[in-house]
Amino acid sequence: VRDRPTPEATVARLPLYLRVLVDLVTAGDVTVSSDALAVAAGVTSAKVRKDLSYLGSYGTRGKGYDVAYLVHQIRRELGLTQPWPIAIVGIGNLGQALANFRGFGDRGFRVAALVDNDPAKMGERLGDVVVRPVDELPALVAEQGIAIGVIATPAGSAQDAADALVAAGVRSILNFAPTLVSVPPAVTVRKVDVAIELQILAYYEQRKAVFREVRRGRRAATSRS
Amino acid sequence: VRDRPTPEATVARLPLYLRVLVDLVTAGDVTVSSDALAVAAGVTSAKVRKDLSYLGSYGTRGKGYDVAYLVHQIRRELGLTQPWPIAIVGIGNLGQALANFRGFGDRGFRVAALVDNDPAKMGERLGDVVVRPVDELPALVAEQGIAIGVIATPAGSAQDAADALVAAGVRSILNFAPTLVSVPPAVTVRKVDVAIELQILAYYEQRKAVFREVRRGRRAATSRS
Repeated sequence: VRDRPTPEATVARLPLYLRVLVDLVTAGDVTVSSDALAVAAGVTSAKVRKDLSYLGSYGTRGKGYDVAYLVHQIRRELGLTQPWPIAIVGIGNLGQALANFRGFGDRGFRVAALVDNDPAKMGERLGDVVVRPVDELPALVAEQGIAIGVIATPAGSAQDAADALVAAGVRSILNFAPTLVSVPPAVTVRKVDVAIELQILAYYEQRKAVFREVRRGRRAATSRS
Repeated sequence: VRDRPTPEATVARLPLYLRVLVDLVTAGDVTVSSDALAVAAGVTSAKVRKDLSYLGSYGTRGKGYDVAYLVHQIRRELGLTQPWPIAIVGIGNLGQALANFRGFGDRGFRVAALVDNDPAKMGERLGDVVVRPVDELPALVAEQGIAIGVIATPAGSAQDAADALVAAGVRSILNFAPTLVSVPPAVTVRKVDVAIELQILAYYEQRKAVFREVRRGRRAATSRS
């Protein structure tokens, strides 16, 4: 435990940097400037330098950061040096999409358990993992050392899924269901809400439409004068 | 166009408030305090008051905000007074999960087009909408007035999907594929990245583990003394 805790907003940006850096490694790049990293991650270079300073990484003037070392530092900071086993609850379309998502492996995660309460789905195999009943969750969590659970159920079953995960000892939950779930204070929940992302887009889309109207109005005024 | 633009961070929080407020309307609540709204949305009440001040909403001392009016104001600000028609590109498991997502209707969106380049999927019906080939996208966008596109393809097809959306005149894109896409500057892209959400959770999970170790160490030290 360090003296200076990493701010939440920095933690939220580290995975963005990591994704860019892994692409740079693949492309054979050895160093990267804070400017280049900033453009690729969509933030200012001052923010990049400040964020990376929390990892004790300051780069070299005129050369920038060592890409491979920075990948190592961010992975260590995020706790991704060992793959985290995750459990997915709810194996409908979304659960299947997540179970088949190729990206988990090289991003520090491994799908270790799939559970559902639909008897028709039991025994179905997705990748290397077989769908099991929800009541086997405590055994699966203990066996596989699962610390992170993903809720991919419909809204109506999300609280049951959260309760089952918490009862099984899971303390970090990613919730895809379009509803809030209640958990004890020691459990962390992050919510992925598609409609919220769309609503943010709608705001900017609307602003663009307003600006187009204004510009058109101005042009019309100019051509009249 | 107002004098004081709403900050990006406020825009990102308005959908959170909206979700809470719609639940309150359903529960029959007429007013809400900034404190209650803050707790439900997971922010401070000072932030709630500041955010809502951008909408010209200040509440009444001792009574709080009028719930129904605040819903109206946020919907108007976000441009959700008319449902936005959206197009989904890529009708695999994820695209189907999104197409069947019940939440869109009452959140200001309507799935108006589903496209894929797999001939086996053509003509398949999801809800009220039939899957069409990608080359019909320009016609569908024009007919349905689509301004927002959702990419639900695998990573390898995401850039093609983005190009098709942009060529068809779509200017706002929500990208679910685990890769970055390039678009012209006038187009807005928001990225939903499951692995990034998991990486943020992993960080907090790791911190919890460290604190548990420290606490255990302290207890051991105490019991020894």
